[in-house]
Amino acid sequence: MNTTCISRLSRYRNAVLRLKALNFAKVFSENLADATGVNAAQVRKDFSMCGISGSGRGGYPITDLIGQLNKVLGKDKVQEFVVVGIGNIGRALLRYPGFRRNEIGIVAGFDTDKDKYDRDAEVPILPLEELHGFVAKHGIQFGIIAVPEVAAQDVLEVMLKAGIKGILNFAPICLKSPCGCVVRNLSLETELENIIYFTNIGT
Amino acid sequence: MNTTCISRLSRYRNAVLRLKALNFAKVFSENLADATGVNAAQVRKDFSMCGISGSGRGGYPITDLIGQLNKVLGKDKVQEFVVVGIGNIGRALLRYPGFRRNEIGIVAGFDTDKDKYDRDAEVPILPLEELHGFVAKHGIQFGIIAVPEVAAQDVLEVMLKAGIKGILNFAPICLKSPCGCVVRNLSLETELENIIYFTNIGT
Repeated sequence: MNTTCISRLSRYRNAVLRLKALNFAKVFSENLADATGVNAAQVRKDFSMCGISGSGRGGYPITDLIGQLNKVLGKDKVQEFVVVGIGNIGRALLRYPGFRRNEIGIVAGFDTDKDKYDRDAEVPILPLEELHGFVAKHGIQFGIIAVPEVAAQDVLEVMLKAGIKGILNFAPICLKSPCGCVVRNLSLETELENIIYFTNIGT
Repeated sequence: MNTTCISRLSRYRNAVLRLKALNFAKVFSENLADATGVNAAQVRKDFSMCGISGSGRGGYPITDLIGQLNKVLGKDKVQEFVVVGIGNIGRALLRYPGFRRNEIGIVAGFDTDKDKYDRDAEVPILPLEELHGFVAKHGIQFGIIAVPEVAAQDVLEVMLKAGIKGILNFAPICLKSPCGCVVRNLSLETELENIIYFTNIGT
């Protein structure tokens, strides 16, 4: 399965959760296609790739489907992340309510600026040199880099040494995935440049 | 050209700008491949698709290359965006320094909560009902949706009526691109779910 497929599964899950909140018991591939902007054949193909089967014309029982999607997407427990870099983006991530709804827990922030430290906050903000110990103590696997470009490579190395295995990088520099670690680069500038390009060519 | 290609061009441009700051006069496809994590053949193929040609083994003159990439990516002038929804993410976007460096201007924020209005801020925060007039007056083409899921579809419609042509949506709901408008959905949850999935399967 690739990134696009996982992104679709994540969107199907969000749509199914909304339908469940409306007391629906079953869902059809056409419902999910509507809600996520793909066609129904794609939904069935994606489900079949993860071993999720419906009862033909009877659709998918919602409770089963949520359980199966949770398993594929690692939602059977809360997945804990640390954030390094408590600037505007980092701070917004610490407070983002959508994560907790999706079994994603932001458990601590780290920075090198002592004015930002806050041990007593609900999500504590700690000195970067404590990252290693914190990650080891709590068995954290995931991290987010939200530091300026010039600091990103150093922070990546600190995270790797601490044992982090999966990283989302918001710094506008393309970090490579080192051996044994998954790094995904998300550049806000690039996202907006895509909008500009496709709007300008009129597609 | 597709989204992935535009994302690569954006990353090449960032790398070229960094090399220019170091006083380099020429750049080779291998340099850009290194800096952006693709191979050199891909760099040459992408450039050739946009009509950018180098002088064979002599590389690409940096100043020309920046000019050509700017043209493709719509960087020959500042592209102005409005942000609707001044929560954590919206506020972080208003203050994000990486945009201005890349000829992206966030010119106003809009919300429906009057406690957030701030007409005198450097980037003013205005009532949502003023969006239409503001967009018309300033000829704005681009917008960012950073409202909760339940409000996203309504905000999309307000933006379309105002004449916005390109939208980045941060709300965790998949908005469809209506006729005449480009909508890109960016879900932070989905980004983290991708990290979790690929880390768990160990690739």
